[in-house]
Amino acid sequence: MHFTSEKHLENGVLEREFTLGEIPGILWTPESAAPVPLILMGHPGGLGGMHPRLVARALGCAAEGYASAAIELPGAGDRPRFPVVDEARADLRRVLKAGEPVTDDIIDRLVLPLVETAVPEWRTALDALLALPGIRGPVGLSGGVIAIGTRLAVVEPRLEAAVLFAGSYVPRSILEEARQVSIPLHVLLQWDDEGNDRQQALDLFDAFGSKEKTLNANMGGHTGVPWFAGEAAGRFLARHLK
Amino acid sequence: MHFTSEKHLENGVLEREFTLGEIPGILWTPESAAPVPLILMGHPGGLGGMHPRLVARALGCAAEGYASAAIELPGAGDRPRFPVVDEARADLRRVLKAGEPVTDDIIDRLVLPLVETAVPEWRTALDALLALPGIRGPVGLSGGVIAIGTRLAVVEPRLEAAVLFAGSYVPRSILEEARQVSIPLHVLLQWDDEGNDRQQALDLFDAFGSKEKTLNANMGGHTGVPWFAGEAAGRFLARHLK
Repeated sequence: MHFTSEKHLENGVLEREFTLGEIPGILWTPESAAPVPLILMGHPGGLGGMHPRLVARALGCAAEGYASAAIELPGAGDRPRFPVVDEARADLRRVLKAGEPVTDDIIDRLVLPLVETAVPEWRTALDALLALPGIRGPVGLSGGVIAIGTRLAVVEPRLEAAVLFAGSYVPRSILEEARQVSIPLHVLLQWDDEGNDRQQALDLFDAFGSKEKTLNANMGGHTGVPWFAGEAAGRFLARHLK
Repeated sequence: MHFTSEKHLENGVLEREFTLGEIPGILWTPESAAPVPLILMGHPGGLGGMHPRLVARALGCAAEGYASAAIELPGAGDRPRFPVVDEARADLRRVLKAGEPVTDDIIDRLVLPLVETAVPEWRTALDALLALPGIRGPVGLSGGVIAIGTRLAVVEPRLEAAVLFAGSYVPRSILEEARQVSIPLHVLLQWDDEGNDRQQALDLFDAFGSKEKTLNANMGGHTGVPWFAGEAAGRFLARHLK
């Protein structure tokens, strides 16, 4: 992990860009004498375009006393294209435009390669981040591609709680894997998200094996998660990471 | 409205039993120099048996600076029996025991007479409560039979926000009425509530016409609403009644 830039934001928060091999990432740390817990911040890909929203979330994390970090998704931003996913995305656009059903085959080709590649990358990033002097566990996850979050919750024992956003396609195999998740979950769903299959989101929530899981569904469309739902997600993380 | 008893609880909270015509009720008020908002506290019927849980909720309301009140449901507690509802309840027990489906007819006969009778009673209670010197609006509703809460939200303009508990049967006609509800709603659902039809609860949430509505679903069975879900419901009321 190599830091490539450093910037002081408001309230003493330090934003550092880094590379982890070929993968770009950003780390935000609050001013703190003691090591702080870490939130892995999920996102839909494209750190550049997501930056303003990620900074807002990172400042919220810092105010609670957490570090937060994001790494670029495979095939997104300045990373090399991911042709198999690009192809699936083109197929998805085609069937949506034609009003045809989105098949399991398209969802698998769109999401599974991302999961297979991103999850080991996030785990490697976690190794590097937890080796930094100012950061310790517990580790939480917040948002991003829900299939990636689900797999990460199954395979990564250092993850202690996760806020998941049920706003993207879920392959059937991931729905099965969800039964193995046992950490506390707080699942956000935008009830009237036109681009999302609500029943699939409810099926995924049902499948999670966690004893403590909350579904928090709100109005406002895909990008309209209300501020109070964001606050509730923050309170969930605070409950489990402090 | 006649007060029949008065008791000082902890933190200066005053508990007063009252009768409103033939209907018994309880009012809890916090110590306050200024008039306070009011929460109507719903319940499944039987003020006597519900008393410990109602007191706990009332103390929570008082800590937030609200008065709270409950009246007995028709046919419950010491009120005269409600034969048509008793008969429907016997039919419900019979079909549940036999593993037969719960028909719309049984749900209608079980719930609609309660709604028809209880809603005007709650409105009369509201008239009397808001005429007391220490109580003013805004008025919120918290819990109880969800069909009663839905009708009340449609017909009672003084109600400004409602926490509803999706834990009891909903007649189809009430599902239709739900489209007319426009006040902010916070709907609690116990995801693994064996005695409750989850799909019906989701259909009801979907039907509500409110622009701001939140579904907060948790694990723990019908009576196991987790403390953090109670807190989230309290925060919703605080957002809308202050």
